[in-house]
Amino acid sequence: MTSKGALIYEGKAKKLFEISGDSSKLWVEYKNSLTAFNAQKKGEFERKGEINLKISTIIFKLLKADGIKTHWIENRSENEMIVERVKIIPLEVVVRNVLAGSTAKKMGLAEGTKITRPLVEFYFKNDDLADPFVSDDQIEVLGIADKEQIQSLKLLALKVNATLLKIFSKINLSLIDFKVEFGFDQKGNIILADEISPDCMRLWDIKTGEKMDKDRFRRDLGNVKESYQEVLRRLEEVILEN
Amino acid sequence: MTSKGALIYEGKAKKLFEISGDSSKLWVEYKNSLTAFNAQKKGEFERKGEINLKISTIIFKLLKADGIKTHWIENRSENEMIVERVKIIPLEVVVRNVLAGSTAKKMGLAEGTKITRPLVEFYFKNDDLADPFVSDDQIEVLGIADKEQIQSLKLLALKVNATLLKIFSKINLSLIDFKVEFGFDQKGNIILADEISPDCMRLWDIKTGEKMDKDRFRRDLGNVKESYQEVLRRLEEVILEN
Repeated sequence: MTSKGALIYEGKAKKLFEISGDSSKLWVEYKNSLTAFNAQKKGEFERKGEINLKISTIIFKLLKADGIKTHWIENRSENEMIVERVKIIPLEVVVRNVLAGSTAKKMGLAEGTKITRPLVEFYFKNDDLADPFVSDDQIEVLGIADKEQIQSLKLLALKVNATLLKIFSKINLSLIDFKVEFGFDQKGNIILADEISPDCMRLWDIKTGEKMDKDRFRRDLGNVKESYQEVLRRLEEVILEN
Repeated sequence: MTSKGALIYEGKAKKLFEISGDSSKLWVEYKNSLTAFNAQKKGEFERKGEINLKISTIIFKLLKADGIKTHWIENRSENEMIVERVKIIPLEVVVRNVLAGSTAKKMGLAEGTKITRPLVEFYFKNDDLADPFVSDDQIEVLGIADKEQIQSLKLLALKVNATLLKIFSKINLSLIDFKVEFGFDQKGNIILADEISPDCMRLWDIKTGEKMDKDRFRRDLGNVKESYQEVLRRLEEVILEN
């Protein structure tokens, strides 16, 4: 029987523990804290870890049903899951369906600007450097990933996007953008890791336009917890329907 | 006989004039001013326009000899040239042979970090936005250039780099990086435009390591004019040798 081992990493929203006697897996605890602007802004709310774990779990299962391999294995408590231990590729992979956030800002375009096809972006995962935006050529030349891996990451990210768009349109949420991370599993395959929750997506209510994601926290819009809960509520309804 | 027409654009280092009765060409005046940090820092020195025009002219001729088409047609005075009028592609194309400047900084790498092959980068030309760094996918999705044009720009930039490396190694200068701009000529071909001078390159003396470019101005290293003059002097020697 697996049991929680030593803490090996504490991130902004999750703690990672070893699993005694099984180096192929990790024990992940979803925390109640949330941060923004490279952790310069900090906050938390009750049951946040639980809500995000539930949302991530539903999505991981739906991705699996669509043939996309993720690190999720099973849940252990309201806010803990067992995942496959992967070697994380140090890139935040962002998919945008509509422009918002840093890309809209840097290009001088209005938030909500439509684009003709989804845009995949890479940010080098490094807190000290504030996760700089990098091009494919920079990733290659700096030895972060090779051409083939970059291509795989793009294709996988777009597949994840297709499934997420399908899920969220069913619950009247427009998926503006999201961030995912990938890693190499024991066999060297690239699989989806990290989490998929309102912490790392922009979700706008299709009817009201209301933001239902971490921008409520970033921009002090209020009702952070209520919005996360509402996303989970709608997802659970969809799951029950199917 | 062509004559200087109305001023149509004044940039940081050049003025562009129409040519009376010939809409296919432009009259370019190289100014004595130089700027850095998106024009937040301003300076000038005597004969700077003349020195940069002479350096650019020598390089344009050497590029032409290597089969690379540029906008240069002929010079009209010590600091004025006639060029083909092109439709500028709004991208600053940067080629790096060694890491320095913004890329070294954003990746947390030391200036002078070696890379295994030249790196081509694109920056969206927009002063109000401070020329943001953009990826190939952003360029495509935002409609700045299509995939084929991006590929052409990269290949052209690398060809220019090969010629420049050859030129500067002959005069004991290490070409760290440079910025060029391209445009569409009347026939729709992509040709090299703008200038190629110490304003838009990093040149380090191979023997002493001394900087011989605009970093002397950016970083208040002194001897700005003397360094530009020395680059010209060495280039003129090479030209006379051949």
